[in-house]
Amino acid sequence: MTRQQLIDLIRQRQSFLCVGLDTDLSKIPAHLQGNPDAAFLFNKAIIDATIDYAVAYKPNLAFYESMGIGGLVQLKKTMDYLHQLDKPAFTIADAKRGDIGNTSKQYAKAFLDPQGDFNFDAMTIAPYMGEDSVTPFTVYEGKWVILLALTSNKGAFDFQFLESNGRRLFENVLEKSKQWGGEDNMMYVVGATKADMLGDIRRIVPNSFLLVPGVGAQGGSLEEVCRYGLTSECGLLVNSSRGIIYASNGEDFAERAADEARKLQQQMASFMR
Amino acid sequence: MTRQQLIDLIRQRQSFLCVGLDTDLSKIPAHLQGNPDAAFLFNKAIIDATIDYAVAYKPNLAFYESMGIGGLVQLKKTMDYLHQLDKPAFTIADAKRGDIGNTSKQYAKAFLDPQGDFNFDAMTIAPYMGEDSVTPFTVYEGKWVILLALTSNKGAFDFQFLESNGRRLFENVLEKSKQWGGEDNMMYVVGATKADMLGDIRRIVPNSFLLVPGVGAQGGSLEEVCRYGLTSECGLLVNSSRGIIYASNGEDFAERAADEARKLQQQMASFMR
Repeated sequence: MTRQQLIDLIRQRQSFLCVGLDTDLSKIPAHLQGNPDAAFLFNKAIIDATIDYAVAYKPNLAFYESMGIGGLVQLKKTMDYLHQLDKPAFTIADAKRGDIGNTSKQYAKAFLDPQGDFNFDAMTIAPYMGEDSVTPFTVYEGKWVILLALTSNKGAFDFQFLESNGRRLFENVLEKSKQWGGEDNMMYVVGATKADMLGDIRRIVPNSFLLVPGVGAQGGSLEEVCRYGLTSECGLLVNSSRGIIYASNGEDFAERAADEARKLQQQMASFMR
Repeated sequence: MTRQQLIDLIRQRQSFLCVGLDTDLSKIPAHLQGNPDAAFLFNKAIIDATIDYAVAYKPNLAFYESMGIGGLVQLKKTMDYLHQLDKPAFTIADAKRGDIGNTSKQYAKAFLDPQGDFNFDAMTIAPYMGEDSVTPFTVYEGKWVILLALTSNKGAFDFQFLESNGRRLFENVLEKSKQWGGEDNMMYVVGATKADMLGDIRRIVPNSFLLVPGVGAQGGSLEEVCRYGLTSECGLLVNSSRGIIYASNGEDFAERAADEARKLQQQMASFMR
Protein backbone atom coordinates (compact mmCIF):
# COMPACT_ATOMS: atom_id res chain seq x y z
CA MET A 1 0.00 0.00 0.00
CA THR A 2 1.42 3.39 -0.98
CA ARG A 3 1.51 6.42 1.28
CA GLN A 4 -1.29 8.07 -0.70
CA GLN A 5 -3.47 4.95 -0.54
CA LEU A 6 -2.94 4.80 3.22
CA ILE A 7 -3.85 8.48 3.64
CA ASP A 8 -6.96 7.99 1.50
CA LEU A 9 -8.00 4.96 3.56
CA ILE A 10 -7.56 6.92 6.80
CA ARG A 11 -9.73 9.77 5.46
CA GLN A 12 -12.39 7.40 4.19
CA ARG A 13 -12.73 5.44 7.46
CA GLN A 14 -12.07 8.52 9.62
CA SER A 15 -9.73 6.33 11.61
CA PHE A 16 -6.05 5.70 12.11
CA LEU A 17 -6.61 2.70 14.31
CA CYS A 18 -4.34 -0.32 14.07
CA VAL A 19 -5.63 -3.48 15.74
CA GLY A 20 -2.85 -5.58 17.25
CA LEU A 21 -3.48 -9.27 16.74
CA ASP A 22 -1.50 -10.54 19.77
CA THR A 23 -3.49 -13.74 19.67
CA ASP A 24 -2.82 -15.86 22.74
CA LEU A 25 -4.57 -19.23 22.97
CA SER A 26 -4.72 -18.96 26.77
CA LYS A 27 -6.76 -15.74 26.51
CA ILE A 28 -9.26 -16.42 23.74
CA PRO A 29 -12.85 -17.41 24.55
CA ALA A 30 -13.45 -20.93 25.82
CA HIS A 31 -15.83 -21.84 23.00
CA LEU A 32 -13.01 -21.46 20.43
CA GLN A 33 -10.38 -23.36 22.39
CA GLY A 34 -9.47 -26.83 21.24
CA ASN A 35 -10.30 -26.04 17.62
CA PRO A 36 -7.10 -26.48 15.53
CA ASP A 37 -7.98 -23.22 13.74
CA ALA A 38 -8.78 -21.36 16.98
CA ALA A 39 -6.26 -18.56 16.40
CA PHE A 40 -7.44 -17.96 12.84
CA LEU A 41 -11.13 -18.12 13.77
CA PHE A 42 -10.51 -15.66 16.59
CA ASN A 43 -8.62 -13.30 14.25
CA LYS A 44 -11.27 -13.59 11.54
CA ALA A 45 -14.03 -12.66 13.99
CA ILE A 46 -11.99 -9.72 15.29
CA ILE A 47 -11.25 -8.51 11.75
CA ASP A 48 -14.89 -8.80 10.66
CA ALA A 49 -16.01 -6.90 13.76
CA THR A 50 -13.46 -4.08 13.53
CA ILE A 51 -12.62 -3.45 9.88
CA ASP A 52 -15.06 -0.56 9.53
CA TYR A 53 -13.29 1.22 12.39
CA ALA A 54 -9.65 0.28 11.71
CA VAL A 55 -7.21 0.86 8.85
CA ALA A 56 -4.47 -1.53 9.89
CA TYR A 57 -3.87 -4.94 11.48
CA LYS A 58 -0.64 -5.84 13.23
CA PRO A 59 -0.11 -9.53 14.04
CA ASN A 60 2.62 -9.84 16.62
CA LEU A 61 4.85 -12.61 15.28
CA ALA A 62 5.92 -13.80 18.73
CA PHE A 63 2.42 -14.98 19.56
CA TYR A 64 2.25 -17.14 16.44
CA GLU A 65 5.82 -18.45 16.73
CA SER A 66 5.17 -19.48 20.33
CA MET A 67 2.45 -21.86 19.05
CA GLY A 68 5.08 -23.66 16.97
CA ILE A 69 4.91 -24.22 13.22
CA GLY A 70 1.12 -24.58 13.44
CA GLY A 71 0.98 -20.99 14.67
CA LEU A 72 2.52 -19.78 11.43
CA VAL A 73 -0.20 -21.64 9.54
CA GLN A 74 -2.75 -19.68 11.58
CA LEU A 75 -0.94 -16.47 10.66
CA LYS A 76 -0.95 -17.37 6.97
CA LYS A 77 -4.69 -18.08 7.08
CA THR A 78 -5.21 -14.71 8.74
CA MET A 79 -3.18 -12.91 6.06
CA ASP A 80 -4.93 -14.81 3.25
CA TYR A 81 -8.25 -13.75 4.74
CA LEU A 82 -7.19 -10.09 4.94
CA HIS A 83 -5.94 -10.17 1.34
CA GLN A 84 -9.20 -11.47 -0.10
CA LEU A 85 -11.48 -9.03 1.75
CA ASP A 86 -13.05 -6.32 -0.39
CA LYS A 87 -12.25 -3.80 2.34
CA PRO A 88 -8.55 -2.94 2.24
CA ALA A 89 -6.33 -2.80 5.32
CA PHE A 90 -2.67 -1.99 5.89
CA THR A 91 -0.88 -5.03 7.32
CA ILE A 92 2.11 -4.91 9.66
CA ALA A 93 4.32 -7.84 10.65
CA ASP A 94 5.35 -6.89 14.16
CA ALA A 95 8.56 -8.83 13.89
CA LYS A 96 11.32 -6.56 15.30
CA ARG A 97 13.84 -8.16 12.92
CA GLY A 98 17.20 -6.82 11.72
CA ASP A 99 20.52 -8.49 10.87
CA ILE A 100 23.50 -8.09 8.52
CA GLY A 101 22.45 -7.13 4.97
CA ASN A 102 22.68 -10.63 3.55
CA THR A 103 20.34 -11.90 6.28
CA SER A 104 17.92 -8.94 6.41
CA LYS A 105 17.33 -9.59 2.71
CA GLN A 106 16.01 -13.04 3.67
CA TYR A 107 13.73 -11.60 6.37
CA ALA A 108 12.35 -9.09 3.86
CA LYS A 109 11.63 -11.94 1.46
CA ALA A 110 9.93 -13.91 4.24
CA PHE A 111 7.42 -11.22 5.17
CA LEU A 112 7.16 -8.60 2.40
CA ASP A 113 7.57 -10.54 -0.84
CA PRO A 114 4.24 -10.61 -2.74
CA GLN A 115 5.08 -14.22 -3.76
CA GLY A 116 5.76 -15.27 -0.16
CA ASP A 117 3.48 -16.92 2.40
CA PHE A 118 2.53 -13.65 4.12
CA ASN A 119 2.85 -10.58 1.85
CA PHE A 120 2.66 -7.95 4.60
CA ASP A 121 2.68 -4.23 3.72
CA ALA A 122 5.19 -3.40 6.44
CA MET A 123 7.35 -4.84 9.15
CA THR A 124 8.89 -3.52 12.35
CA ILE A 125 12.71 -3.43 12.39
CA ALA A 126 15.22 -2.91 15.23
CA PRO A 127 17.90 -0.31 14.40
CA TYR A 128 20.85 -1.54 16.50
CA MET A 129 22.77 -3.04 13.55
CA GLY A 130 22.51 0.09 11.37
CA GLU A 131 22.11 0.82 7.69
CA ASP A 132 22.73 -2.51 5.96
CA SER A 133 20.35 -4.21 8.42
CA VAL A 134 17.53 -1.83 7.44
CA THR A 135 17.82 -1.00 3.74
CA PRO A 136 17.00 -4.51 2.43
CA PHE A 137 13.45 -3.93 3.68
CA THR A 138 13.01 -0.79 1.57
CA VAL A 139 13.39 -2.42 -1.85
CA TYR A 140 9.88 -3.80 -2.29
CA GLU A 141 7.60 -1.32 -4.04
CA GLY A 142 4.74 -0.06 -1.87
CA LYS A 143 6.17 -1.80 1.21
CA TRP A 144 7.39 -0.23 4.42
CA VAL A 145 10.03 -0.42 7.12
CA ILE A 146 8.74 0.58 10.55
CA LEU A 147 11.90 1.35 12.49
CA LEU A 148 11.97 1.24 16.30
CA ALA A 149 12.74 4.71 17.59
CA LEU A 150 11.26 5.19 21.07
CA THR A 151 9.48 2.13 22.42
CA SER A 152 6.64 2.00 24.92
CA ASN A 153 8.25 -0.25 27.54
CA LYS A 154 10.24 0.46 30.69
CA GLY A 155 13.41 -0.91 29.09
CA ALA A 156 13.30 1.99 26.61
CA PHE A 157 15.09 4.02 29.29
CA ASP A 158 18.11 1.70 29.33
CA PHE A 159 19.64 2.83 26.01
CA GLN A 160 17.22 4.91 23.93
CA PHE A 161 17.81 8.05 26.01
CA LEU A 162 21.63 7.85 26.05
CA GLU A 163 22.95 11.15 24.75
CA SER A 164 25.75 11.66 22.28
CA ASN A 165 26.41 14.46 19.78
CA GLY A 166 23.81 16.44 21.74
CA ARG A 167 21.10 13.96 20.78
CA ARG A 168 19.48 11.03 22.50
CA LEU A 169 19.88 7.62 20.85
CA PHE A 170 16.31 7.54 19.53
CA GLU A 171 16.92 10.95 17.95
CA ASN A 172 20.18 9.70 16.43
CA VAL A 173 18.24 6.77 14.99
CA LEU A 174 15.64 9.09 13.45
CA GLU A 175 18.26 11.48 12.01
CA LYS A 176 20.49 8.75 10.57
CA SER A 177 17.63 6.71 9.14
CA LYS A 178 16.53 9.63 6.96
CA GLN A 179 19.51 8.71 4.75
CA TRP A 180 18.11 5.18 4.31
CA GLY A 181 14.53 5.78 3.29
CA GLY A 182 11.89 8.47 3.06
CA GLU A 183 8.33 9.31 3.93
CA ASP A 184 7.12 6.86 1.32
CA ASN A 185 8.74 3.72 2.71
CA MET A 186 9.77 4.36 6.31
CA MET A 187 7.71 4.81 9.46
CA TYR A 188 8.80 4.85 13.11
CA VAL A 189 7.62 3.16 16.30
CA VAL A 190 7.01 5.75 19.02
CA GLY A 191 5.38 4.55 22.22
CA ALA A 192 2.27 6.36 23.44
CA THR A 193 3.63 6.10 26.98
CA LYS A 194 6.17 8.75 25.95
CA ALA A 195 3.77 11.05 24.08
CA ASP A 196 5.46 14.17 25.44
CA MET A 197 8.48 13.24 23.29
CA LEU A 198 6.39 13.43 20.12
CA GLY A 199 7.14 17.13 19.72
CA ASP A 200 10.88 16.44 19.65
CA ILE A 201 10.29 13.58 17.22
CA ARG A 202 8.17 15.69 14.88
CA ARG A 203 11.01 18.23 14.63
CA ILE A 204 13.18 15.48 13.07
CA VAL A 205 10.55 13.63 11.02
CA PRO A 206 7.75 16.18 10.50
CA ASN A 207 5.69 14.20 7.98
CA SER A 208 6.63 10.58 8.52
CA PHE A 209 4.01 8.13 9.69
CA LEU A 210 4.45 7.03 13.29
CA LEU A 211 3.19 3.69 14.58
CA VAL A 212 2.15 4.33 18.17
CA PRO A 213 1.67 1.34 20.48
CA GLY A 214 0.87 1.60 24.15
CA VAL A 215 -2.55 3.29 24.11
CA GLY A 216 -4.83 1.46 26.53
CA ALA A 217 -3.33 -1.53 28.35
CA GLN A 218 0.11 0.08 28.54
CA GLY A 219 -1.29 3.41 29.75
CA GLY A 220 -0.78 5.88 26.90
CA SER A 221 -3.33 8.61 26.14
CA LEU A 222 -4.80 9.02 22.64
CA GLU A 223 -5.44 12.70 23.22
CA GLU A 224 -1.80 13.44 24.05
CA VAL A 225 -0.58 11.38 21.11
CA CYS A 226 -2.81 13.40 18.78
CA ARG A 227 -1.88 16.75 20.29
CA TYR A 228 1.83 16.23 19.53
CA GLY A 229 1.80 13.71 16.70
CA LEU A 230 -1.02 14.48 14.23
CA THR A 231 -0.09 16.09 10.90
CA SER A 232 -2.26 17.50 8.13
CA GLU A 233 -2.10 14.08 6.46
CA CYS A 234 -2.71 12.34 9.80
CA GLY A 235 0.76 10.77 10.03
CA LEU A 236 -0.26 8.36 12.77
CA LEU A 237 -1.25 4.74 13.14
CA VAL A 238 -2.29 4.17 16.74
CA ASN A 239 -2.27 0.57 17.85
CA SER A 240 -4.46 -1.09 20.41
CA SER A 241 -4.13 -4.81 21.05
CA ARG A 242 -5.36 -6.17 24.37
CA GLY A 243 -7.89 -3.36 24.90
CA ILE A 244 -9.77 -4.48 21.79
CA ILE A 245 -9.18 -8.16 21.22
CA TYR A 246 -9.60 -9.16 24.88
CA ALA A 247 -12.41 -6.70 25.70
CA SER A 248 -14.41 -9.81 26.57
CA ASN A 249 -13.44 -13.45 26.78
CA GLY A 250 -17.04 -14.60 26.41
CA GLU A 251 -19.02 -15.47 23.31
CA ASP A 252 -19.59 -11.73 22.79
CA PHE A 253 -15.84 -11.09 22.30
CA ALA A 254 -16.25 -9.84 18.71
CA GLU A 255 -19.12 -7.47 19.55
CA ARG A 256 -17.18 -6.08 22.49
CA ALA A 257 -14.08 -5.71 20.27
CA ALA A 258 -16.24 -3.79 17.79
CA ASP A 259 -17.48 -1.54 20.62
CA GLU A 260 -13.94 -0.73 21.73
CA ALA A 261 -12.72 -0.15 18.17
CA ARG A 262 -15.73 2.09 17.41
CA LYS A 263 -15.06 4.15 20.54
CA LEU A 264 -11.46 4.72 19.49
CA GLN A 265 -12.50 5.47 15.89
CA GLN A 266 -14.98 8.09 17.09
CA GLN A 267 -12.33 9.76 19.24
CA MET A 268 -9.90 9.64 16.30
CA ALA A 269 -12.47 11.20 13.95
CA SER A 270 -12.95 14.04 16.42
CA PHE A 271 -9.20 14.69 16.67
CA MET A 272 -8.81 14.63 12.86
CA ARG A 273 -11.26 17.50 12.33
CA MET B 1 23.44 -27.01 28.12
CA THR B 2 25.12 -25.52 31.20
CA ARG B 3 28.30 -23.45 31.14
CA GLN B 4 30.29 -26.34 32.59
CA GLN B 5 28.92 -28.79 30.03
CA LEU B 6 29.86 -26.38 27.24
CA ILE B 7 33.38 -25.92 28.60
CA ASP B 8 33.77 -29.70 28.92
CA LEU B 9 32.59 -30.20 25.34
CA ILE B 10 35.05 -27.59 24.06
CA ARG B 11 37.93 -29.31 25.89
CA GLN B 12 36.89 -32.74 24.67
CA ARG B 13 36.62 -31.76 21.00
CA GLN B 14 39.49 -29.27 21.22
CA SER B 15 37.30 -26.89 19.31
CA PHE B 16 35.16 -23.82 19.86
CA LEU B 17 33.79 -23.85 16.34
CA CYS B 18 30.15 -22.95 15.66
CA VAL B 19 28.86 -23.90 12.22
CA GLY B 20 26.35 -21.41 10.87
CA LEU B 21 23.51 -23.13 9.05
CA ASP B 22 22.59 -20.23 6.72
CA THR B 23 20.96 -22.70 4.38
CA ASP B 24 19.99 -21.05 1.09
CA LEU B 25 18.23 -23.21 -1.50
CA SER B 26 19.83 -21.19 -4.30
CA LYS B 27 23.32 -22.13 -3.08
CA ILE B 28 23.04 -25.80 -2.18
CA PRO B 29 24.31 -28.50 -4.56
CA ALA B 30 22.22 -29.21 -7.66
CA HIS B 31 21.69 -32.88 -6.79
CA LEU B 32 19.72 -31.89 -3.65
CA GLN B 33 17.58 -29.24 -5.28
CA GLY B 34 13.95 -30.02 -5.97
CA ASN B 35 13.75 -32.43 -3.03
CA PRO B 36 11.12 -31.11 -0.59
CA ASP B 37 13.54 -31.95 2.25
CA ALA B 38 16.52 -30.35 0.50
CA ALA B 39 17.34 -27.93 3.33
CA PHE B 40 17.16 -30.64 5.98
CA LEU B 41 19.17 -33.15 3.91
CA PHE B 42 21.81 -30.48 3.30
CA ASN B 43 21.96 -29.62 7.02
CA LYS B 44 22.10 -33.28 8.02
CA ALA B 45 25.02 -33.94 5.70
CA ILE B 46 26.83 -30.83 7.00
CA ILE B 47 26.22 -31.84 10.63
CA ASP B 48 27.40 -35.43 10.07
CA ALA B 49 30.52 -34.15 8.33
CA THR B 50 31.46 -31.52 10.90
CA ILE B 51 30.29 -32.64 14.33
CA ASP B 52 33.69 -34.05 15.34
CA TYR B 53 35.22 -30.62 14.72
CA ALA B 54 32.46 -28.32 15.98
CA VAL B 55 30.73 -27.77 19.32
CA ALA B 56 27.81 -25.62 18.15
CA TYR B 57 25.34 -25.16 15.31
CA LYS B 58 23.64 -21.87 14.58
CA PRO B 59 20.72 -21.96 12.16
CA ASN B 60 20.01 -18.45 10.94
CA LEU B 61 16.24 -18.11 11.22
CA ALA B 62 15.94 -15.69 8.30
CA PHE B 63 17.01 -18.35 5.82
CA TYR B 64 14.28 -20.73 6.99
CA GLU B 65 11.58 -18.06 7.29
CA SER B 66 12.33 -16.90 3.75
CA MET B 67 11.31 -20.37 2.49
CA GLY B 68 7.87 -19.86 4.04
CA ILE B 69 6.23 -22.17 6.54
CA GLY B 70 7.87 -25.18 4.86
CA GLY B 71 11.23 -23.69 5.83
CA LEU B 72 10.33 -23.90 9.50
CA VAL B 73 9.52 -27.57 9.01
CA GLN B 74 13.05 -28.02 7.62
CA LEU B 75 14.41 -26.23 10.69
CA LYS B 76 12.42 -28.46 13.03
CA LYS B 77 13.71 -31.59 11.28
CA THR B 78 17.25 -30.24 11.65
CA MET B 79 16.77 -29.60 15.37
CA ASP B 80 15.13 -33.00 15.90
CA TYR B 81 18.13 -34.57 14.19
CA LEU B 82 20.60 -32.70 16.39
CA HIS B 83 18.70 -33.65 19.54
CA GLN B 84 18.74 -37.39 18.82
CA LEU B 85 22.46 -37.58 17.93
CA ASP B 86 24.65 -39.29 20.51
CA LYS B 87 27.23 -36.53 20.06
CA PRO B 88 26.06 -33.39 21.87
CA ALA B 89 26.15 -29.91 20.35
CA PHE B 90 25.18 -26.47 21.61
CA THR B 91 22.38 -25.04 19.47
CA ILE B 92 21.80 -21.36 18.77
CA ALA B 93 18.72 -19.81 17.18
CA ASP B 94 20.19 -16.83 15.36
CA ALA B 95 16.95 -14.92 15.62
CA LYS B 96 17.90 -11.35 16.71
CA ARG B 97 14.58 -11.05 18.55
CA GLY B 98 13.59 -8.66 21.35
CA ASP B 99 10.31 -6.91 22.24
CA ILE B 100 8.36 -5.69 25.29
CA GLY B 101 8.43 -8.20 28.16
CA ASN B 102 5.02 -9.68 27.44
CA THR B 103 6.11 -10.41 23.84
CA SER B 104 9.70 -11.50 24.53
CA LYS B 105 8.20 -14.15 26.80
CA GLN B 106 6.41 -15.57 23.74
CA TYR B 107 9.62 -15.56 21.67
CA ALA B 108 11.44 -17.37 24.48
CA LYS B 109 8.69 -19.98 24.53
CA ALA B 110 8.91 -20.35 20.74
CA PHE B 111 12.60 -21.17 20.63
CA LEU B 112 13.88 -22.19 24.08
CA ASP B 113 11.00 -24.12 25.66
CA PRO B 114 11.91 -27.83 25.93
CA GLN B 115 8.27 -28.64 25.04
CA GLY B 116 8.33 -26.43 21.94
CA ASP B 117 9.03 -27.29 18.30
CA PHE B 118 12.71 -26.27 18.43
CA ASN B 119 14.21 -26.43 21.94
CA PHE B 120 17.36 -24.44 21.20
CA ASP B 121 20.03 -23.95 23.88
CA ALA B 122 20.39 -20.26 23.12
CA MET B 123 19.11 -17.42 20.99
CA THR B 124 20.50 -14.11 19.80
CA ILE B 125 18.72 -11.01 21.12
CA ALA B 126 18.89 -7.34 20.10
CA PRO B 127 19.37 -4.97 23.07
CA TYR B 128 17.64 -1.79 21.80
CA MET B 129 14.49 -2.24 23.92
CA GLY B 130 16.37 -2.82 27.18
CA GLU B 131 15.88 -4.94 30.28
CA ASP B 132 12.32 -6.25 30.00
CA SER B 133 12.98 -7.26 26.38
CA VAL B 134 15.93 -9.42 27.45
CA THR B 135 15.18 -10.97 30.84
CA PRO B 136 12.32 -13.26 29.66
CA PHE B 137 14.97 -15.26 27.79
CA THR B 138 16.97 -15.95 30.95
CA VAL B 139 14.30 -17.91 32.82
CA TYR B 140 14.76 -21.32 31.20
CA GLU B 141 17.26 -23.46 33.11
CA GLY B 142 20.43 -24.25 31.16
CA LYS B 143 19.38 -21.89 28.33
CA TRP B 144 21.14 -18.76 27.13
CA VAL B 145 20.62 -15.24 25.86
CA ILE B 146 23.25 -14.16 23.35
CA LEU B 147 22.98 -10.38 23.36
CA LEU B 148 24.16 -8.29 20.40
CA ALA B 149 27.02 -6.09 21.56
CA LEU B 150 29.32 -5.25 18.64
CA THR B 151 28.21 -6.72 15.33
CA SER B 152 30.38 -7.68 12.36
CA ASN B 153 28.68 -5.54 9.71
CA LYS B 154 29.37 -2.07 8.35
CA GLY B 155 26.14 -0.75 9.93
CA ALA B 156 27.67 -1.44 13.37
CA PHE B 157 29.34 1.96 13.03
CA ASP B 158 26.00 3.80 12.79
CA PHE B 159 25.01 3.52 16.46
CA GLN B 160 27.14 0.99 18.36
CA PHE B 161 30.09 3.41 18.67
CA LEU B 162 28.06 6.43 19.84
CA GLU B 163 29.62 7.64 23.08
CA SER B 164 27.80 8.67 26.21
CA ASN B 165 28.85 8.55 29.88
CA GLY B 166 32.40 8.06 28.55
CA ARG B 167 31.40 4.73 27.00
CA ARG B 168 30.45 3.61 23.54
CA LEU B 169 26.95 2.16 23.10
CA PHE B 170 28.19 -1.44 22.84
CA GLU B 171 30.06 -0.92 26.11
CA ASN B 172 26.95 0.54 27.73
CA VAL B 173 25.05 -2.56 26.57
CA LEU B 174 27.67 -4.86 28.11
CA GLU B 175 27.80 -2.92 31.40
CA LYS B 176 24.02 -2.63 31.79
CA SER B 177 23.29 -6.23 30.82
CA LYS B 178 25.42 -7.53 33.68
CA GLN B 179 22.46 -6.58 35.90
CA TRP B 180 20.17 -8.84 33.85
CA GLY B 181 22.07 -12.10 33.71
CA GLY B 182 25.42 -13.65 34.43
CA GLU B 183 28.16 -15.80 33.01
CA ASP B 184 25.88 -18.83 33.28
CA ASN B 185 23.06 -17.59 31.06
CA MET B 186 24.31 -14.66 28.99
CA MET B 187 26.77 -14.47 26.11
CA TYR B 188 27.52 -11.61 23.71
CA VAL B 189 27.85 -11.27 19.95
CA VAL B 190 31.15 -9.61 19.05
CA GLY B 191 32.10 -9.50 15.38
CA ALA B 192 35.50 -10.86 14.37
CA THR B 193 35.86 -7.93 11.98
CA LYS B 194 36.37 -5.76 15.08
CA ALA B 195 38.73 -8.10 16.94
CA ASP B 196 40.87 -5.20 18.17
CA MET B 197 37.91 -4.19 20.36
CA LEU B 198 37.98 -7.53 22.17
CA GLY B 199 40.46 -6.20 24.73
CA ASP B 200 38.03 -3.43 25.70
CA ILE B 201 35.18 -5.95 25.82
CA ARG B 202 37.12 -8.37 28.03
CA ARG B 203 37.65 -5.58 30.56
CA ILE B 204 33.86 -5.40 31.00
CA VAL B 205 32.97 -9.10 30.67
CA PRO B 206 36.20 -10.94 31.51
CA ASN B 207 34.76 -14.46 31.66
CA SER B 208 31.58 -14.37 29.59
CA PHE B 209 31.30 -16.45 26.47
CA LEU B 210 31.46 -14.43 23.25
CA LEU B 211 29.85 -15.62 20.03
CA VAL B 212 32.11 -14.34 17.28
CA PRO B 213 30.76 -14.25 13.72
CA GLY B 214 32.62 -12.82 10.76
CA VAL B 215 35.66 -15.14 10.55
CA GLY B 216 36.15 -16.13 6.92
CA ALA B 217 33.65 -14.71 4.39
CA GLN B 218 33.32 -11.44 6.31
CA GLY B 219 37.09 -11.05 6.71
CA GLY B 220 37.81 -11.57 10.41
CA SER B 221 40.99 -13.31 11.60
CA LEU B 222 40.83 -16.27 13.99
CA GLU B 223 44.28 -15.52 15.32
CA GLU B 224 43.37 -11.97 16.34
CA VAL B 225 40.11 -13.11 17.91
CA CYS B 226 42.00 -15.63 20.02
CA ARG B 227 44.76 -13.20 20.99
CA TYR B 228 42.26 -10.79 22.56
CA GLY B 229 39.28 -12.99 23.36
CA LEU B 230 40.42 -16.40 24.70
CA THR B 231 40.11 -17.03 28.44
CA SER B 232 41.36 -19.89 30.59
CA GLU B 233 37.97 -21.56 30.08
CA CYS B 234 38.02 -20.68 26.37
CA GLY B 235 35.15 -18.17 26.54
CA LEU B 236 34.66 -18.15 22.77
CA LEU B 237 32.37 -19.67 20.19
CA VAL B 238 33.68 -18.71 16.76
CA ASN B 239 31.16 -19.02 13.96
CA SER B 240 31.81 -19.81 10.34
CA SER B 241 28.88 -20.15 7.96
CA ARG B 242 29.56 -19.71 4.24
CA GLY B 243 33.25 -20.72 4.48
CA ILE B 244 32.20 -24.19 5.62
CA ILE B 245 28.75 -24.97 4.26
CA TYR B 246 29.42 -23.60 0.78
CA ALA B 247 33.06 -24.76 0.52
CA SER B 248 31.85 -26.69 -2.54
CA ASN B 249 28.54 -26.74 -4.34
CA GLY B 250 29.25 -30.13 -5.93
CA GLU B 251 28.46 -33.63 -4.69
CA ASP B 252 31.55 -33.38 -2.46
CA PHE B 253 30.05 -30.48 -0.43
CA ALA B 254 30.01 -32.42 2.84
CA GLU B 255 33.61 -33.66 2.51
CA ARG B 256 34.78 -30.16 1.68
CA ALA B 257 32.79 -28.78 4.64
CA ALA B 258 34.53 -31.36 6.85
CA ASP B 259 37.92 -30.25 5.46
CA GLU B 260 37.22 -26.59 6.28
CA ALA B 261 35.83 -27.39 9.73
CA ARG B 262 38.85 -29.63 10.49
CA LYS B 263 41.27 -26.88 9.44
CA LEU B 264 39.56 -24.42 11.80
CA GLN B 265 39.43 -27.01 14.60
CA GLN B 266 43.16 -27.66 14.26
CA GLN B 267 43.93 -23.94 14.43
CA MET B 268 41.64 -23.62 17.44
CA ALA B 269 43.34 -26.55 19.21
CA SER B 270 46.71 -24.86 18.69
CA PHE B 271 45.44 -21.56 20.14
CA MET B 272 43.92 -23.33 23.16
CA ARG B 273 47.24 -24.83 24.27
